[in-house]
Amino acid sequence: MAKIVVIGGSFGGLTAAFELKRLLGKKADVTLISDIDKFIFIPSLPWIAMGWRKAEDITVSLKPILERKGIIFIHEAAKGVDADLSKVKTETKEIQYDYLIISTGPYLAFDEVPGLGPEKGHTECIFTLEQAERANKAWNKFLEDPGTVVTGSVQGVSCFGPPYEYAFEIDSELRRRKMRHKVPIVFVTSEPYIGHFGIGGLRNSRWIMENEFAKRDIKIIVNTAVEEIVPGEVRLKDGTKIPFKLSMFAPAMKGIPAVSHLGNPRGFIPVDGKYRYTKYKNIFVVGVAVAIAPPEQTPVPTGVPKTGYMTVKMAKTAAMTIVSDITGIAYPEENPIDVVCLMDMGNTAAIMKANPVLPPRQEATLKSGVIYKWMKTGFEKYFLWKIKHGLSGLP
Amino acid sequence: MAKIVVIGGSFGGLTAAFELKRLLGKKADVTLISDIDKFIFIPSLPWIAMGWRKAEDITVSLKPILERKGIIFIHEAAKGVDADLSKVKTETKEIQYDYLIISTGPYLAFDEVPGLGPEKGHTECIFTLEQAERANKAWNKFLEDPGTVVTGSVQGVSCFGPPYEYAFEIDSELRRRKMRHKVPIVFVTSEPYIGHFGIGGLRNSRWIMENEFAKRDIKIIVNTAVEEIVPGEVRLKDGTKIPFKLSMFAPAMKGIPAVSHLGNPRGFIPVDGKYRYTKYKNIFVVGVAVAIAPPEQTPVPTGVPKTGYMTVKMAKTAAMTIVSDITGIAYPEENPIDVVCLMDMGNTAAIMKANPVLPPRQEATLKSGVIYKWMKTGFEKYFLWKIKHGLSGLP
Amino acid sequence: MAKIVVIGGSFGGLTAAFELKRLLGKKADVTLISDIDKFIFIPSLPWIAMGWRKAEDITVSLKPILERKGIIFIHEAAKGVDADLSKVKTETKEIQYDYLIISTGPYLAFDEVPGLGPEKGHTECIFTLEQAERANKAWNKFLEDPGTVVTGSVQGVSCFGPPYEYAFEIDSELRRRKMRHKVPIVFVTSEPYIGHFGIGGLRNSRWIMENEFAKRDIKIIVNTAVEEIVPGEVRLKDGTKIPFKLSMFAPAMKGIPAVSHLGNPRGFIPVDGKYRYTKYKNIFVVGVAVAIAPPEQTPVPTGVPKTGYMTVKMAKTAAMTIVSDITGIAYPEENPIDVVCLMDMGNTAAIMKANPVLPPRQEATLKSGVIYKWMKTGFEKYFLWKIKHGLSGLP
Repeated sequence: MAKIVVIGGSFGGLTAAFELKRLLGKKADVTLISDIDKFIFIPSLPWIAMGWRKAEDITVSLKPILERKGIIFIHEAAKGVDADLSKVKTETKEIQYDYLIISTGPYLAFDEVPGLGPEKGHTECIFTLEQAERANKAWNKFLEDPGTVVTGSVQGVSCFGPPYEYAFEIDSELRRRKMRHKVPIVFVTSEPYIGHFGIGGLRNSRWIMENEFAKRDIKIIVNTAVEEIVPGEVRLKDGTKIPFKLSMFAPAMKGIPAVSHLGNPRGFIPVDGKYRYTKYKNIFVVGVAVAIAPPEQTPVPTGVPKTGYMTVKMAKTAAMTIVSDITGIAYPEENPIDVVCLMDMGNTAAIMKANPVLPPRQEATLKSGVIYKWMKTGFEKYFLWKIKHGLSGLP
Repeated sequence: MAKIVVIGGSFGGLTAAFELKRLLGKKADVTLISDIDKFIFIPSLPWIAMGWRKAEDITVSLKPILERKGIIFIHEAAKGVDADLSKVKTETKEIQYDYLIISTGPYLAFDEVPGLGPEKGHTECIFTLEQAERANKAWNKFLEDPGTVVTGSVQGVSCFGPPYEYAFEIDSELRRRKMRHKVPIVFVTSEPYIGHFGIGGLRNSRWIMENEFAKRDIKIIVNTAVEEIVPGEVRLKDGTKIPFKLSMFAPAMKGIPAVSHLGNPRGFIPVDGKYRYTKYKNIFVVGVAVAIAPPEQTPVPTGVPKTGYMTVKMAKTAAMTIVSDITGIAYPEENPIDVVCLMDMGNTAAIMKANPVLPPRQEATLKSGVIYKWMKTGFEKYFLWKIKHGLSGLP
Repeated sequence: MAKIVVIGGSFGGLTAAFELKRLLGKKADVTLISDIDKFIFIPSLPWIAMGWRKAEDITVSLKPILERKGIIFIHEAAKGVDADLSKVKTETKEIQYDYLIISTGPYLAFDEVPGLGPEKGHTECIFTLEQAERANKAWNKFLEDPGTVVTGSVQGVSCFGPPYEYAFEIDSELRRRKMRHKVPIVFVTSEPYIGHFGIGGLRNSRWIMENEFAKRDIKIIVNTAVEEIVPGEVRLKDGTKIPFKLSMFAPAMKGIPAVSHLGNPRGFIPVDGKYRYTKYKNIFVVGVAVAIAPPEQTPVPTGVPKTGYMTVKMAKTAAMTIVSDITGIAYPEENPIDVVCLMDMGNTAAIMKANPVLPPRQEATLKSGVIYKWMKTGFEKYFLWKIKHGLSGLP
């Protein structure tokens, strides 16, 4: 009986654990380690920040679901991986594995920009539930005494979507409240142009997004790095100072400390086309932890985003590869990963499809319309329902 | 009985005088001073230049209208204001006032660019009736021997609309006459980009206007200052020389000499939210004479336009404030001023709405279509009818 | 009986010969000299390169057609023109003329860029039938082992259309074959911007083409000159190196050696409004051989394209002028030349109309749609049918 350990309880970890258990049944002993005992539908975190969702609307307790499926759940943080001895360490345990799936998500590198982030710094963030709830409090306070909002992405960011959504949502909510004229919104990004998204743009995303920002009267500052953030002021490397009443910035990401020694200098881990770690045959890596080379060098450094959709796809391939290893059935095909992404725009939304993710692409779509807003809401409900029923995500 | 003096017989002065007389009746003695004895519908002056209107189509004699309403009309130029003694001087009179409304329009600063303007210079202008009629003669002569047209706005301009209209109208009229291919049209402006309009742009006005100029094959030179104009040639500060057969340029504006000592170095007068002069409680200022800070510093200096629509709104607030002072009724609300503007484009037209005028804005609209051309014509007739009947403008 | 000699058997030469014979009949002795014994419908050469046409689909033998019309056909290359003695020399003959029409097309100046061209260089071309057939072989080989495609126009090019068509067709064909994601496409051009076409753009052609390239994920490098081409690599003057698996570049054009001594340093011959050579009254020049000044100096040198449509128009005017000389009937009107052009875009097509060709223009159109693809195919068949029946082209 194979011992399989999965680190991470979000898109990648749950998908992998469900798939492995579904296909291997009694042939495998599947253990999932996570420091958070809930699944959080991360794409909805901006809506928490806006007050459009409560925590309970977008979270599911992991324990009952995993146990019902016969998956062992260890609610502890992974502290380290010993690849030579095939062991994962947590605070209180050492767990032996035959196969390991690393789906640990990001370490948020607030420390790379002085004054960045909600804990030691002066900006909000919406990448964890706690941050989003904190951002919602800041937002409610801001509404009583509005002023300039500065939002965007600092140098080295790979996950560009949430600040876009945040800017559009702020704009829409303020118009709804008839307060938009009291709030200059400034969007600062390390992307070489609006609509680059870390993937070299998507069809005419530059045009569409520049037009959208113009229409919404959101000022853009592109191709820029942030020097530091002091209370109430963003200071760019080029000397520009932008005072603010409210600020939300995406930080750069790194691999989390427990696994970063396996990877490149930023702690992202190199894999082959089946998400198998290039150095150890029994370790697989999916999601943010994977090293993906950017499609082009940008003047200010940027990275390639790894969305939930991509992570689920990776997790399925990794799980299926382990199943093939163990059972001898055919290996899954190696396809360059594609992506479908729904970007909220407050009063509307956009759908993006890219196949593969990075150019040149066989297919690429970018369309906006209120129908995609409904689709986004529908998908949130659908995905949470799937997780609650122990089914791996995506149709 | 309060003595109220209004200087200016155009949008602001007439609106204020009509409102004051309508609301105060016998409680006030309203005097209107103007060096011109006609109301001229200034927005139609480009059509005079094109030969699409005659002077009589867009002018109304002031005397009979004002007298019928019981407003005293002094057809003389104001020569000075003594704010300490509350007196206005004209050529032959000294008029004491309890309240003064300054609605004097602009002094056209042709002297700031050598060779600019129709009198001492070599370019046409369409900001006064005389200029527009002169420009029409130049146009008719040009049609017999066509060549390059250079039009636009020099440094320091705040009223950017008329050169846009002129360029579009020239283009349309030449196509109608099957002569467009004989006339290169060059549009030169101090705006940082086409569609800036001195108000930092309006939604995607940059895109729409750049596209429109491209479609019409009108060459654009933006972000530029004019060094001098010699007969048949515009010389830019960067050394570019553009020969022309016909040229129309908007000049910068200043406060008129009679009141400029009350204002900033350019003679524009600072006011509070009710258009009350910040230094003297019994003086109000509306329209071009008001000092409005630009929303952003542009590389080449530009100013904020003050349209007829804005002036009427200001005049109503100023008049209502005086009424409140005198009668004790509630003061009018202070709202940041909005604007609605219809820009003629020759064969079509565009409507622009901005609320407030300067960004950030709660609402902003920019649409073009032939329906707005009809709307513009309709509004011209409607407004002139209102003035003829002694009603203050706008619904 | 007037002896008229026409050099060239393509759009210009055939049109002129047919027109002269039709109108003058027995009054003229018309001789056509061409080194190629077929009419080739040049606009379809990109389709040869793509494998969408075979040579026999787009060629017509000249001899039977010309002889049936009573036109003498000399299948030899013109070696020289002695304008003083009114003689054309070929390999074996000296032919006396009363009137000469030069419609010789271009000399392709591959030698101006080291490594350019299919014979002595490392890039394909699609300007002759042989080149297009060679390019088709290279394309078929490429499909077995795809990689980067670099295509475009080097400095000095005047005929920009075919590389646009080639880039769009490559993109469309690769999508059809589900291989697009394996092929980065880079478009390199000396035009100051995409959509300039050597004619200063056409309405909003810049916007439309930039958008189209973005949508198709074709990378653009504009305003650039090529330093040299080595096997598998394009080297730009600015130091950029672009490796490729397949490359197709348009070369600059010059007048062909046999007539270039009559023209400017590039061998293009100056003419009056009737295409009569400015130095000799009995010589006419049409098509690529004509000198046309560019509408504006571009940072990297570019020329004005002369399309088949334009050449046919020129040839008709030149022929009619000779007819007037001989018969005394009224001379044809001199109109600045217009152009209609159908650009293939692989899965769709665009129609462009410009009247006149160079700005400012009375009329300009740019529309795309699949209907123009059908129109382009229909026109190919129609024109070939006309040539086969000895009728001069265009309705």
